[in-house]
Amino acid sequence: MSSIPPSLQSLIDELARLPGVGKKSAQRMALHLLKEPRERSQNLADALLAVKDRLTICRKCFNIAEDDQCPICSDSRRDTTLICVVEQASDILPLEKSGAFHGQYHVLGGVLSPLDHQNGEDLHLDDLVRRVKPEGVLEVIVATNPTTEGEATALLVAQMLKPTGVKVTRIARGIPVGSELEFADEATLARALEGRGEL
Amino acid sequence: MSSIPPSLQSLIDELARLPGVGKKSAQRMALHLLKEPRERSQNLADALLAVKDRLTICRKCFNIAEDDQCPICSDSRRDTTLICVVEQASDILPLEKSGAFHGQYHVLGGVLSPLDHQNGEDLHLDDLVRRVKPEGVLEVIVATNPTTEGEATALLVAQMLKPTGVKVTRIARGIPVGSELEFADEATLARALEGRGEL
Repeated sequence: MSSIPPSLQSLIDELARLPGVGKKSAQRMALHLLKEPRERSQNLADALLAVKDRLTICRKCFNIAEDDQCPICSDSRRDTTLICVVEQASDILPLEKSGAFHGQYHVLGGVLSPLDHQNGEDLHLDDLVRRVKPEGVLEVIVATNPTTEGEATALLVAQMLKPTGVKVTRIARGIPVGSELEFADEATLARALEGRGEL
Repeated sequence: MSSIPPSLQSLIDELARLPGVGKKSAQRMALHLLKEPRERSQNLADALLAVKDRLTICRKCFNIAEDDQCPICSDSRRDTTLICVVEQASDILPLEKSGAFHGQYHVLGGVLSPLDHQNGEDLHLDDLVRRVKPEGVLEVIVATNPTTEGEATALLVAQMLKPTGVKVTRIARGIPVGSELEFADEATLARALEGRGEL
């Protein structure tokens, strides 16, 4: 592939290291940027470094933040009596988009995963327990993923919060809205039946 | 979406402007870069600007190049008696990958497209005609796309090269290798029959 100038090849290689980007799409992106004004590349380059320079971790909930506290923790309109526990900061985005939650969050930073030597020491569990009393939290909703690891982590969260006496709930697992029973797996169907509510 | 810090949102917006990247994948890329060491973002930012600063157009064949001439034009092992005419510089990559062509290229920079007011004035057609004699070219292979515009452009290339007396050929159009007759469209099948060769 000596027909590609080295600087273009490096850009293709760097783009191909992004998640979900293969060699072909990286090539397409690089050739696209080549045709666009220099400003476009400059903006992207600036944005890449700004994120690294400015972003930090919220010292309260461990969400990503530009200041000491993330936009959610510093928003006075949020309900401080409710905490939603998630695995990763990226899990907050879809929950916020749903518009159905107006409390605060707590990012664990991972899940229990004995195979990866993740036994919970690195998770922000103690920090969660410490938040409950001083913040006057009434309910902790555990929104870890409905995977084996996520469920195990949810149980651990509940167990650790027990001494505080706070109410601990788990998000419902069931048939996704808009999908069909025909395509649901048995475990999901079993959960959907188990978690049925009155009409 | 006030839950996303502004610098992260800018990065997502910039990434989403790349071809083939939607909002969700841009978000995924941005969050991925957030977890990676700063060096990764720095490398990508550097590569983005290097392409803009270093790349230019080969003054001989109009391919992308870092110097006056592209890596292919300055490669003495290439067959200078053969020129392959393509629409865009990006068309050279797949041809080079095929390993079946060892001549030089000529990038037209577009196709005839009356609807877009592209009547051939902006194409590097005169430059192609001027190359034939001094470079001792024996054959010009027209490898524009087998679309209406590409075919029209191929005819124009042949017409303009007529006075030079050089042999002008067109790449074969037919059934793609590995595909099945059943799924080929009529136009392709007609071309495949028309262009049949002896066994």
